[in-house]
Amino acid sequence: FPSKQAQVQTTIFTKMSALASEHGALNLSQGFPGFDCSEELQALLAFYSKGHNQYAPMSGVPVFKQSIADKTNLFYGIDIDAHKEVTVVSGATEALFCAIHCCVFPGDEVIMFDPSYDAYDPAVRLAGGIPIHLSMDAQNGFQIDWEELARIISPKTRAIMVNSPHNPTGSIWTENDLEALAEIVKGTNILIISDEVYEHIVFDGKKHYSVLLHPELRKRSFVCGSFGKTYHITGWKIGYCLAPEYLTKEFQKLHQWVTFSSATPLQYALSDYLKEPAHYLGLSDFYQRKRDLFASAFQGSKWKLLPSHGSFFQCMDYREISNEKDVDLAERLTKEIKVASIPISVFYENAPGDTILRFCFAKSDEVLLEAAQRLVQL
Amino acid sequence: FPSKQAQVQTTIFTKMSALASEHGALNLSQGFPGFDCSEELQALLAFYSKGHNQYAPMSGVPVFKQSIADKTNLFYGIDIDAHKEVTVVSGATEALFCAIHCCVFPGDEVIMFDPSYDAYDPAVRLAGGIPIHLSMDAQNGFQIDWEELARIISPKTRAIMVNSPHNPTGSIWTENDLEALAEIVKGTNILIISDEVYEHIVFDGKKHYSVLLHPELRKRSFVCGSFGKTYHITGWKIGYCLAPEYLTKEFQKLHQWVTFSSATPLQYALSDYLKEPAHYLGLSDFYQRKRDLFASAFQGSKWKLLPSHGSFFQCMDYREISNEKDVDLAERLTKEIKVASIPISVFYENAPGDTILRFCFAKSDEVLLEAAQRLVQL
Ligand SMILES: CSCCC(=O)C(=O)O
Ligand SMILES: CSCCC(=O)C(=O)O
Repeated sequence: FPSKQAQVQTTIFTKMSALASEHGALNLSQGFPGFDCSEELQALLAFYSKGHNQYAPMSGVPVFKQSIADKTNLFYGIDIDAHKEVTVVSGATEALFCAIHCCVFPGDEVIMFDPSYDAYDPAVRLAGGIPIHLSMDAQNGFQIDWEELARIISPKTRAIMVNSPHNPTGSIWTENDLEALAEIVKGTNILIISDEVYEHIVFDGKKHYSVLLHPELRKRSFVCGSFGKTYHITGWKIGYCLAPEYLTKEFQKLHQWVTFSSATPLQYALSDYLKEPAHYLGLSDFYQRKRDLFASAFQGSKWKLLPSHGSFFQCMDYREISNEKDVDLAERLTKEIKVASIPISVFYENAPGDTILRFCFAKSDEVLLEAAQRLVQL
Repeated sequence: FPSKQAQVQTTIFTKMSALASEHGALNLSQGFPGFDCSEELQALLAFYSKGHNQYAPMSGVPVFKQSIADKTNLFYGIDIDAHKEVTVVSGATEALFCAIHCCVFPGDEVIMFDPSYDAYDPAVRLAGGIPIHLSMDAQNGFQIDWEELARIISPKTRAIMVNSPHNPTGSIWTENDLEALAEIVKGTNILIISDEVYEHIVFDGKKHYSVLLHPELRKRSFVCGSFGKTYHITGWKIGYCLAPEYLTKEFQKLHQWVTFSSATPLQYALSDYLKEPAHYLGLSDFYQRKRDLFASAFQGSKWKLLPSHGSFFQCMDYREISNEKDVDLAERLTKEIKVASIPISVFYENAPGDTILRFCFAKSDEVLLEAAQRLVQL
């Protein structure tokens, strides 16, 4: 049987979570909270389990789309139109897939910055596009080399994938990054596909610079969002795409053949829940405390912590501990000391030989401290 | 902005449901129940709203996959392996999309029988494939012309889409159909993508002939299923794909980039619910009564009812009432007498000029009788 994705394997998240479960390891690999969502949200779902069980409209339940627009407008001080610029989808993964598929023609180039989330490259290839990978460098805080980007864009460039707060590294964009990108795409037809699922998790008083904040970017952007990380419901698989009307039209043409619509009771529950800003405004503090707790346990150890400015991931350099490849070390730690993590090299087309593992700190304090204790003993 | 789907519009279901709602019409267009799911299933969802809110495994919650395999094995007397042959997805639409995308290479031909469900053709085109439409004829009960199929297959044929009970016509396959298809594909590499979302709605004591029942077909089939129609939860968007291990592997490689996984609380609720055969064994009787009630209201009228052997759709020929095009009549009836239906011509590449509308009878008896009363007065 001829495989369309002969090189493709099960995602690293599935692999490491399965390995963690097989070996009874503390699972700091796949990014999901080790605790439940709020009882208020649970109660809303229980409430909407009655009478809200048939197809939602293809683009989303109208009150939910309005809630998403209102929340976005309030948070960013902008003016998203709920009817023309919002599509509800089954998780940010679907948003990314549909955004890529609705605009990438065979032969088009799509630029992404490595380490890049593992769903981007295969989605581009499946659309017949050509992924162009630019590397970011751990030594320099995983900053984008804007001059390199300016050199590499061409008439074949259909889109650029951006992602802040960044998974897997925890780096974030500044206003200068928005400016630099805008300068490069201005006057071109290049589209932006922006993965902002960690929009509400930014540390040290810093701010999330969404592409929505820059008119030159916003007018050409698909913004892919999710509620999984914001409300501790990664298992609900409800996400959305914000895009100008001309892009939303094309996005919905794709979405209607991919899943058609998303789970109705979940949309109603969220619609109520996200009206209250308190449900997300405290999230950065919540995770900053966890980041700091986890980090403090490594003081004086041989682990070198890289800066984590956003997301719920902490990258750590283990060069003083081992010279194994990161994929091997991640596997060995899961089996031997029973702490699962994610090797960074898998997110590169050409891995730079770094010695970095990613740990998810969206876990209970006990789990974080226990994991740290096992890791510092290496 | 160059559109990848320039000819594609909003689906007929979105269009007619929106029109129905705009005009306050009885909505017998889009196929969904006009009543809620059971209180038992609602209670299960409420129960699982606690503690089951993080990512499900990519291929589905293990106990749910086991429930799906057990139910299938019990109902069909076969032996699906829950671990190797089952994938949970976000609705049958995703199952169809992933099945098509994981096996169709650019230039491959995929054969489908018109009237064909509207998601098949665009999914094939998006994968770079070439849809080949064979027409079925209302005069002859929408039977497939097997000789024509045998003539049309070629080394370029990658897959054949099959669908029984059939949407939009309500026709069903017999054992002879399974045999005829098996005879044609035997010795070829042609795959089967079988849409069986109405498997539990078959009338008059007849039986659903799944491709799973024929070894020559099963070994090359993706069976796309759903719980939406079976348990009155079209809004949950939980479906599945059953396929031999070598096909399931490719299917999951695609699924992981399309939605990655499906809603966890819904999977747990269903996992319990589908263990009880009584929850689906009465469904055919339930809908047969509605079919008969609806049909009885047209006795002596100018509407000519086509046979409905399965699904929850009744097709009706209006040639004695109007010579309008079906799309025009469907729109006019929605606006004037406020009964929405689906025109059949939109499911053809080359519509035969039939005068047929599809009505969904998954509605309360009151709604069915009221709609019929308005229709017979024409
Ligand atoms: C869709 S599973 C991966 C979850 C995640 O975003 C991560 O761990 O990086
Ligand atoms: C996905 S909306 C269409 C529902 C349906 O299957 C139909 O009405 O035929």
